[in-house]
Amino acid sequence: MTAARLRRVKPETPGGREVVLQAALAAFFEQGYHGTSMRNIAARAGTAISHTYYYFPSKADLLRALILQVTGDLVAALQQAKNDASPAPAAQLTAMVRAHVALHTERQAESFVGNTELRSLGEVDRARAVARRDEVGAMYREVVARGLDQGVFRCLHGDEAVLAIMTMCTAVAAWYRADGPLSAAELGQRYGDLALNMVEYAND
Amino acid sequence: MTAARLRRVKPETPGGREVVLQAALAAFFEQGYHGTSMRNIAARAGTAISHTYYYFPSKADLLRALILQVTGDLVAALQQAKNDASPAPAAQLTAMVRAHVALHTERQAESFVGNTELRSLGEVDRARAVARRDEVGAMYREVVARGLDQGVFRCLHGDEAVLAIMTMCTAVAAWYRADGPLSAAELGQRYGDLALNMVEYAND
Repeated sequence: MTAARLRRVKPETPGGREVVLQAALAAFFEQGYHGTSMRNIAARAGTAISHTYYYFPSKADLLRALILQVTGDLVAALQQAKNDASPAPAAQLTAMVRAHVALHTERQAESFVGNTELRSLGEVDRARAVARRDEVGAMYREVVARGLDQGVFRCLHGDEAVLAIMTMCTAVAAWYRADGPLSAAELGQRYGDLALNMVEYAND
Repeated sequence: MTAARLRRVKPETPGGREVVLQAALAAFFEQGYHGTSMRNIAARAGTAISHTYYYFPSKADLLRALILQVTGDLVAALQQAKNDASPAPAAQLTAMVRAHVALHTERQAESFVGNTELRSLGEVDRARAVARRDEVGAMYREVVARGLDQGVFRCLHGDEAVLAIMTMCTAVAAWYRADGPLSAAELGQRYGDLALNMVEYAND
């Protein structure tokens, strides 16, 4: 670390930070966080290790950057989807599920690392990431509670439905294949329908 | 490895294999497979590294033993639940979901390692583990297809419902806390109801 600090002179390569981050993502995705060294990351990025340390003083900084980025983007994407939908709970719920599936298919490796390496973050960062996941949960719960109040959703256990909807969307990162039978958009559509089933949506 | 082979003399401790396996499980769960060494496992097991190598010639053998055990037990538990239930698709589906949740709460660490470290298995073992997961999927699909044929399930996309039911049950291993508000049995009951919602069960 000391050697790295002495060498913290900004490299000339433009876009270097993003290259290092993507190399770290690929390494964490394939080898796991604990199985990756800064040297592996530098090799994957095709750069000097000092360059890697310039942008990220430690491996923990890389994991933090990746996880807080993707969890922050998830909160923003779901908020946006909710705001853009008609105020009806069913419309908001399906819009959120579509956005959730979209992010986990488009940014599959980040989502997978976010789901599996949360335990590897330090306590403070883990608490920040968990707080963002809780924000996502709170958004879903608000929509489901409103649907139950209005009588358009009729399930008995709204909290379990929310958790199951979230995990169903999250798990997409672990199995989705772009060359599989369903496009990401079709999957989002079908998962939206499943979410409505789970809350027992009745539009009669 | 050579040193280990030379030393393959059966240790005197009874139950030693299970102690080593549980130590490996705890290490993989906390540090990830790639972050764990045979030395870590021996230290956790409170035993000599030669003892560890006696039972498991490599770290890969430990991961294989853990994952194939838990995936095999899952297939057996779901088969049993399906056989013991009344032949009605709704009864079989809920019995399978309850058994799935039970296994993932009782053997949470194994299930979590099975879900997150599948990528760390060698190709042949990964194919065996995936084949068992596919067996579970086939069992669920058979029940759902029969329910659709009989008109008691009415969802449009049975395959997505099955996948979502499986991931909802699997994810329990990542978040369940025995000291949380719901017992494992209550959770299984509620997830059974959610699964019926997902397939649009109508008993009228």
